[in-house]
Amino acid sequence: MEVTQVLHMNKGEGETSYAQNSIVQRKIISVATSIIEEAVVECLEKKLTAESMGIADLGCSSGPNTLMVISEIIDIVYERTNTTGSPLPELRIYMNDLPGNDFNNIFISLPEFYKNLKINKNIGQEGCFISAMPGSFYGRLFPKNSLHFVHSSSSLHWLSQVPPALDSSIFKPLNKGKIYVSKSSPSSVLDAYLSQFKRDFSLFLKCRSEEMVVGGHLVLSFMGRVSADPSSEESCMQWELLARALMSMVLEGLVEGEKVDSFNAPYYAPSTEEVRSTIEEEGSFNINRLEAFEIDWDGGVQSNNNFQNKINKIENYNLSRGQQVAKTIRAVVESMLEIHFGREIMDELFKKYAELVDDYFSTTGAKYIDLLDDEVHDVNFGGGRWKVGKEAIVVA
Amino acid sequence: MEVTQVLHMNKGEGETSYAQNSIVQRKIISVATSIIEEAVVECLEKKLTAESMGIADLGCSSGPNTLMVISEIIDIVYERTNTTGSPLPELRIYMNDLPGNDFNNIFISLPEFYKNLKINKNIGQEGCFISAMPGSFYGRLFPKNSLHFVHSSSSLHWLSQVPPALDSSIFKPLNKGKIYVSKSSPSSVLDAYLSQFKRDFSLFLKCRSEEMVVGGHLVLSFMGRVSADPSSEESCMQWELLARALMSMVLEGLVEGEKVDSFNAPYYAPSTEEVRSTIEEEGSFNINRLEAFEIDWDGGVQSNNNFQNKINKIENYNLSRGQQVAKTIRAVVESMLEIHFGREIMDELFKKYAELVDDYFSTTGAKYIDLLDDEVHDVNFGGGRWKVGKEAIVVA
Repeated sequence: MEVTQVLHMNKGEGETSYAQNSIVQRKIISVATSIIEEAVVECLEKKLTAESMGIADLGCSSGPNTLMVISEIIDIVYERTNTTGSPLPELRIYMNDLPGNDFNNIFISLPEFYKNLKINKNIGQEGCFISAMPGSFYGRLFPKNSLHFVHSSSSLHWLSQVPPALDSSIFKPLNKGKIYVSKSSPSSVLDAYLSQFKRDFSLFLKCRSEEMVVGGHLVLSFMGRVSADPSSEESCMQWELLARALMSMVLEGLVEGEKVDSFNAPYYAPSTEEVRSTIEEEGSFNINRLEAFEIDWDGGVQSNNNFQNKINKIENYNLSRGQQVAKTIRAVVESMLEIHFGREIMDELFKKYAELVDDYFSTTGAKYIDLLDDEVHDVNFGGGRWKVGKEAIVVA
Repeated sequence: MEVTQVLHMNKGEGETSYAQNSIVQRKIISVATSIIEEAVVECLEKKLTAESMGIADLGCSSGPNTLMVISEIIDIVYERTNTTGSPLPELRIYMNDLPGNDFNNIFISLPEFYKNLKINKNIGQEGCFISAMPGSFYGRLFPKNSLHFVHSSSSLHWLSQVPPALDSSIFKPLNKGKIYVSKSSPSSVLDAYLSQFKRDFSLFLKCRSEEMVVGGHLVLSFMGRVSADPSSEESCMQWELLARALMSMVLEGLVEGEKVDSFNAPYYAPSTEEVRSTIEEEGSFNINRLEAFEIDWDGGVQSNNNFQNKINKIENYNLSRGQQVAKTIRAVVESMLEIHFGREIMDELFKKYAELVDDYFSTTGAKYIDLLDDEVHDVNFGGGRWKVGKEAIVVA
């Protein structure tokens, strides 16, 4: 499976689209807002960005979340320059995702977005340039030293590829009946995943360090875990239940067993310590802050009341929590699953999955662990190191 | 009609898509290749681009032509730097079109494009950055002084709006039974079109002059005419026949007459003299060369033999010339027409149109006039003017 060609959020605006099913990711962005604000303000205070400010959102996806992030960043820059009386820098904003992302869907909202920018902030066409850079962030995307602030949310848990040791076209299946790290996975599976994560994340940091100016900020949030154990429930359970749904379809003769044995998700939820050590070993960035926080599997929709959800135009508010979670997960993983298992089983698979999630919710308050990380682009200075950032703060 | 929201080439890869019906536009690009080459080489010789070269293709559309233009420009830069032994500059390539353009369709070909770039020219991800900038080129699109070479093909004949004097929601229809300048149009219609063209083209030049470095080249090709008369057949006949097809449907009761009276194409095919005078009045660019050349309405497909067309994967090679032309025009104007006349009449309209075009071909060798223009970004220097470009050459 060529991840860069297969992985994309469900396109369009339909019932199973990512645009209609991205409440959890929106919640994650809103939790990160204050960190984004601090980081952007620090960029402005360092006067790195007096004339022109390069901003990138990596793994921007499509749907309401995409322009929400951009809008927030523009708000912060606008408010801050207004407060300090400095002129607004020219804003170069780059939206990045894999080439299969539904960029058309974002572009169609841009004229309205620019219009509001002009009306509300008097920022005209000559002040803000929003473009799209399709490509994998596990490679260079931007010219040297062109970026000041880089953001990525709900994306870095996707690996560039399924760990090669798990490639069942070459090796015997190691992870039978499972599709991600699991309690029953042999240690070779755990090792393969961790090693792929470290390789990918290091490459990500190296590429960004070339693209970002010294002192620039990188704010990342992605699925992770607090536990040192990579097979802990907090980071595996959503895949575990999906594997169970698939295995129940194997029992019913709807899916071949070896199809499940040969599928492994190109995903890894690292621990805070794995993230920290990879950043420190790579060496281009200085950790400013590294936190873990919990997000309900359904983004907290059910803990609000229905009236509030209706007001907030939250879709699917009359579904069970399991159905809600199944729609969120489907919008994200369907492109990958359908190429391996076939489109025809998708409805049934996610129906079963919703039931398993509902069962799981009845025994536990299912939560994701999301890691939030603010890093400052450091610079090697001869043999020594010039520290630009502050000490790391970890709240786990 | 909000042109920026309505105008886009037909999306996707289907039978009526622009991707499958853009031979004429491909032909125009190939005619312009030598001019593009001269202009790019001049940019390189001026050493404007030693480290980084900003290249934009405005009105890039989607389909095979889009990456063909980019590929040609990269080839030229690559060959030239190889010959002179200078290092290849970092290539920043921006594809621009209106937000409704099918950018997804281009992006999906990018991984293969980058792969070939690596294999054939050893240009890696760190050497070439291809991004998309959606928006109207009748406004700012790029940061100041960020571009060295700007290309636009088959796009600048589209106006930013229908000339306001022809807006039938405010004024009485002036151009009854017609949809563009015609022999029977009153002079007020001709004036309205010319004035809209001059306003739009001046704004285009002003915006580009802010975005381009001094000495940078702008190569433009678009529909035009040699004749001073804006209602000459060479620039109007394709619209005239479309109006006739519509009027025959009015007679059959399939289209309301006032629908035709109230539609005017947001299009203008200027004369070389109108182009020249607008560039000179605007004053930011110095004309290097301004030529007019003829292109067969069917892109010369029928003058090749069928075997050759099959080899070249030219679609629709077994259609009549009229059918061929109708498909080309449909791929371009359908988005506008269907919003005004309704989707349901499109098949019948273009069937009738094909018949009219076949009749027309039987009496004449129908040709478009395309204008090809290479301009150099000039700079006002105090009260005087520092001429960067050469004298204008007009071949009409």
